[in-house]
Amino acid sequence: MIDKKIHNLQIKEIDITKYRSGDITKHVDFVAEESPLQIKCDSKAMSITMRTPGDDIALTLGFMFTEGLLKDFDEVADVVQEDDNTVNVMLEAGTKIEDKNLERNFYSTSSCGVCGKASVDAIMAQSMYSQAENDMKIDGKILFALQEKLLAVQSAFEMTGGLHACAIFSPEGDYLFHSEDVGRHNALDKLIGHAFMAGRIPLDKHILLLSGRASFELIQKASMAGISCIVAVGAPSSLAVELAKENKLTLVGFLKKSGFNIYSGSQRIL
Amino acid sequence: MIDKKIHNLQIKEIDITKYRSGDITKHVDFVAEESPLQIKCDSKAMSITMRTPGDDIALTLGFMFTEGLLKDFDEVADVVQEDDNTVNVMLEAGTKIEDKNLERNFYSTSSCGVCGKASVDAIMAQSMYSQAENDMKIDGKILFALQEKLLAVQSAFEMTGGLHACAIFSPEGDYLFHSEDVGRHNALDKLIGHAFMAGRIPLDKHILLLSGRASFELIQKASMAGISCIVAVGAPSSLAVELAKENKLTLVGFLKKSGFNIYSGSQRIL
Repeated sequence: MIDKKIHNLQIKEIDITKYRSGDITKHVDFVAEESPLQIKCDSKAMSITMRTPGDDIALTLGFMFTEGLLKDFDEVADVVQEDDNTVNVMLEAGTKIEDKNLERNFYSTSSCGVCGKASVDAIMAQSMYSQAENDMKIDGKILFALQEKLLAVQSAFEMTGGLHACAIFSPEGDYLFHSEDVGRHNALDKLIGHAFMAGRIPLDKHILLLSGRASFELIQKASMAGISCIVAVGAPSSLAVELAKENKLTLVGFLKKSGFNIYSGSQRIL
Repeated sequence: MIDKKIHNLQIKEIDITKYRSGDITKHVDFVAEESPLQIKCDSKAMSITMRTPGDDIALTLGFMFTEGLLKDFDEVADVVQEDDNTVNVMLEAGTKIEDKNLERNFYSTSSCGVCGKASVDAIMAQSMYSQAENDMKIDGKILFALQEKLLAVQSAFEMTGGLHACAIFSPEGDYLFHSEDVGRHNALDKLIGHAFMAGRIPLDKHILLLSGRASFELIQKASMAGISCIVAVGAPSSLAVELAKENKLTLVGFLKKSGFNIYSGSQRIL
């Protein structure tokens, strides 16, 4: 009935600029693919999630089961992968998903700022600010101190070890402000919310530091605030790199004590 | 529990059982608070997000700005924190959020059902399986090898450094299956989806390993699948601990080479 899928996760090959102890080299590297999956039930759009392609059918059925929408595999007549980014679950005649269960599903969780939106188009908000002409320059060496500067002010993380943080710095690397949350998209919304209230948008002369990975929705939110340079301690996803390139943002990942990778906009890093 | 506020963030004091090189001790520790925030615009429910309380107004305005709903702070007449978990943004007369933006970003029809009840109860799906009587026993020492066993099979992580993983093991610590994704909730949905298709639910005689932090929705999903023992490499959130206790799950966090913390259900760890 349904082919079992094995670990066929999609990985993308990309060109990056590596900065190691002062040396700059070009490399081919790999990022985890990230793209939206729309989940339909009896052909009706139900949810959308940013996922790594592969195992889409297991993801869809696991989602519907853990959200309380399905109780048994017998309730499923067929599962159809309609295209690369759409899975449609057809229920057996007589099986009904209670409306109240459907309604419960559309909240954003702390790990994903995208889930619950209605369509793929809905994910993209349009920024008022273009970074194509932004000619900010940053001395690559100042990046190494950013994480330590953030940790110095990040008292809640120290106590719980369980919070994401983001911070803005001047192009010279001076700490300006930071926010923390269990959800990485919430931490960034808090930071941008403060700038918004203070009339400080766009943040086009700033460096944004992310304490973890750079996922699509963080690049999207940063782009809305006119940020041109994003530095992540962790890895970027494929869609994060694509969006950064499209919006002409500088995206740095894997920030370590003496090195980092540039995924987009390397002309801003001296 | 005693609540503390650090940098305007809520931190919870909890009792934990520490296991360090064979010694078991009771300690007081801190976890990051996680609870749902309902965001209203002109008193109409709009979105709900799991966040760390503190800075709720900045979070709300940052969210509305980065989602393209607000363009300028002048559009906002007032922002009211109605209660601990509700913020209402009142727009200036004449300011309108385009319906199309609202619809583009949220499931406007079905999300109201969730937002109308912005409580943990509304978000909670009800598991068919109770763990109250589950008397599985696990030798604490086998936990130390789990992460290495997962890394041995986690090929995509090695290549990208950017994927969350989860895996199930037998009570003796034998590797059984794992899944990976850019989203931690997706990795778990994939794993549970496979078990669902194979007729292997409930997973009540298994250990679930999470490669990162244990947030509310992961405990929720594991609970739906009848899992009784969750071991996380990272920190748990406050709501994760509460839900684990309520559902009588064993929750272990901060799994290191020679130690871990037990947040709930310590009777299952020998």
